[in-house]
Amino acid sequence: MPEPSFWSEDSIEDLLSSRAKIMGPGVWAAARPDERPVISFAGGLPDVASLPSEELLRATRNVLNRERREALQYGGTFGPQPLREAIAERSSHIEGIPLNAEHVIISSGAAHGIGIACEAIIDPGDTVLVESPTFPGSLRTIHSFGADVEAVPMDDQGIRVDLVEEKIQKASDEGKQAKLLYLIPTHQNPAGSTLPLERRERLLEIARDHRILLMEDDAYGELWLGDEPPPPSLFALSGGELAIKVATFSKIIATGLRLGWNLAPPAFINRMAALRYDMGSSPYLGRIVAEMIRSEDLDRHVNRLRTIYRGKLDRVCNALEEHCSDYVSYLRPDGGFFVWVKLREGLSALEVQRVANEKAVIIGAGPHFFADNNTTQHLRIAFSYTPIEEIEEGIHRLAEALSEVASTSTVK
Amino acid sequence: MPEPSFWSEDSIEDLLSSRAKIMGPGVWAAARPDERPVISFAGGLPDVASLPSEELLRATRNVLNRERREALQYGGTFGPQPLREAIAERSSHIEGIPLNAEHVIISSGAAHGIGIACEAIIDPGDTVLVESPTFPGSLRTIHSFGADVEAVPMDDQGIRVDLVEEKIQKASDEGKQAKLLYLIPTHQNPAGSTLPLERRERLLEIARDHRILLMEDDAYGELWLGDEPPPPSLFALSGGELAIKVATFSKIIATGLRLGWNLAPPAFINRMAALRYDMGSSPYLGRIVAEMIRSEDLDRHVNRLRTIYRGKLDRVCNALEEHCSDYVSYLRPDGGFFVWVKLREGLSALEVQRVANEKAVIIGAGPHFFADNNTTQHLRIAFSYTPIEEIEEGIHRLAEALSEVASTSTVK
Repeated sequence: MPEPSFWSEDSIEDLLSSRAKIMGPGVWAAARPDERPVISFAGGLPDVASLPSEELLRATRNVLNRERREALQYGGTFGPQPLREAIAERSSHIEGIPLNAEHVIISSGAAHGIGIACEAIIDPGDTVLVESPTFPGSLRTIHSFGADVEAVPMDDQGIRVDLVEEKIQKASDEGKQAKLLYLIPTHQNPAGSTLPLERRERLLEIARDHRILLMEDDAYGELWLGDEPPPPSLFALSGGELAIKVATFSKIIATGLRLGWNLAPPAFINRMAALRYDMGSSPYLGRIVAEMIRSEDLDRHVNRLRTIYRGKLDRVCNALEEHCSDYVSYLRPDGGFFVWVKLREGLSALEVQRVANEKAVIIGAGPHFFADNNTTQHLRIAFSYTPIEEIEEGIHRLAEALSEVASTSTVK
Repeated sequence: MPEPSFWSEDSIEDLLSSRAKIMGPGVWAAARPDERPVISFAGGLPDVASLPSEELLRATRNVLNRERREALQYGGTFGPQPLREAIAERSSHIEGIPLNAEHVIISSGAAHGIGIACEAIIDPGDTVLVESPTFPGSLRTIHSFGADVEAVPMDDQGIRVDLVEEKIQKASDEGKQAKLLYLIPTHQNPAGSTLPLERRERLLEIARDHRILLMEDDAYGELWLGDEPPPPSLFALSGGELAIKVATFSKIIATGLRLGWNLAPPAFINRMAALRYDMGSSPYLGRIVAEMIRSEDLDRHVNRLRTIYRGKLDRVCNALEEHCSDYVSYLRPDGGFFVWVKLREGLSALEVQRVANEKAVIIGAGPHFFADNNTTQHLRIAFSYTPIEEIEEGIHRLAEALSEVASTSTVK
């Protein structure tokens, strides 16, 4: 037997690929549960009580009774055909454009859908434009392929479309190709904003003129909480031509499934399918979810979720008014899981996060969401996961933290 | 709206990554079912009648009753902890060395497990040694990362270990690093051979001396069909130090799950977890399979499978003796899904495959399994999937094809 640890953290370095070296040894794992009885506004996780386990069990039983053979065999790298068809039909209604299975590839969740799109497109040194702030998990994936990330600022309405062309030009001036713009136009994470129709249309002109592909992360699009749905997706507005729309069952069924889908022009769908080495996402899971779509269990569940999250959002906003109005300002989002709260001048988000943590309230700090150093002093309050009866107490503790930090801060 | 097909097969070329270009647009999909009533010996698929749907449904119900919350939430990139622990415990018995969850990463099937190992190690231009013949799916993945593949010949006992050092030296002489040897030492696909203990031990010496990692594909290891299990894995023989062992639930539960695991030194486990962009394989599926392990449903099922596949293997060998002995020779495999049949001098495997196909029998042709041009005239008969009552008729038709080809072939 060899010496213990023949291959150790150090000795494996010579064996690692460039990509493994970029990623480093750190693992971006699910947060470990806090030992204390904390109130968490930390993660973009669905409401626990409403997780649709009965629907899942029923769909599982139906699939095993009816199509056991197909569900338990390889389904190909595009994903199980019945799920592609069910998504195409459902998406045709939602998007308002005719779609078929050729526009759909099944992914193992939105993170995976973003990954396979990046893998099809990014070579080391290519430029990728991103919103700033944005979702750090996606940034990590984009970085891992060696991209140069160029951050485009946002305002209250979303990405500053007027600055996009100048960033594309900058890349070109440096001899680089800006291939991709990654953005979350609807119920943005973390900022909660939704890009208005006219900005979407301008963005499509830019995408066409500069031949830059739009990667539209739409994890939250169906969870609109206002009176009406958001504007059509970039994918839909371009007739399915100019964007890859990344979607997921994580927020509307469960994150633990690891199942999602990309809508894209068929030429890209083919390439994403071709470079997968996993022989496709699970036909078993895929057919179970297809059954939930066909039975309309999914649509009923999404309707229920809107009611639940509306209630939670109301609770958060009321509590912020009542307890925190001296320290913060915010725009009520039209949907999604996040309230993006701007701190009063002089308050540090990291400091507020730290003191709140001492008071057993977990919140996201703005600076963690920026691709560059132009960070702002915001907090991200994820209201989706917190039990509704804990929300007011949580915000009350946050107010105490704000008060404590304010009393020790020197206004600049 | 833009012109139709703004991004077409042609116009997306400028946007694609190097890896997407290596892979090309072709998709390696599951074969389409033949319209005719064919008898198929083509794919390494499990027996359909025995697919354990009752056990899956029972495990699903138990998991949703007991741990619904954890099963339906993110589980991290190492995979769901209960499955890692259940595999570590079960593998400690099978491998005969103490293992814990740190040695285990959950993958989305063996193909994915091979992919993440390749991704952690291979840069374009690195040398990867492979057996020849080998499994084309793995070859495709290895190629996709830009590796130079060096084929090592096999004999009846498996890889010619005496030639491995010379191939490593050849890479070194060309200024390249041979980082990885990919092999299927047990019930090899396609050759059916199992590497003897003394060759395994010699291979470990070479791996240590030359600091080359062994990637041991063990998809079939548990499906031994002789009187006793195969020799210990390379992973086990090296005390868990010198190999990544890739394993899967595809052949012992169902290919449609897309769930497997890698055993490896923890330093590699960490790096494979770090570079995944999919947020880990499904906690939902993973906990269902963990339940099947804990309840011993899995062990009972594997025992049943051995009986089923022994019966099918007997049937194939008897039929080959009876109908094909003038044209072929073969060694009965000790396990796995394949009989690797050598054709009599002068018979072309591709020609036999073609004529057999006309007679509604599908078989694999040897030349498709080689990484280089040193192909041999073999057929691969996958006996796992064919219903047992069709086996004799299938081999009988193959004999007719052999006779027909022999009567028109000129012996060289």
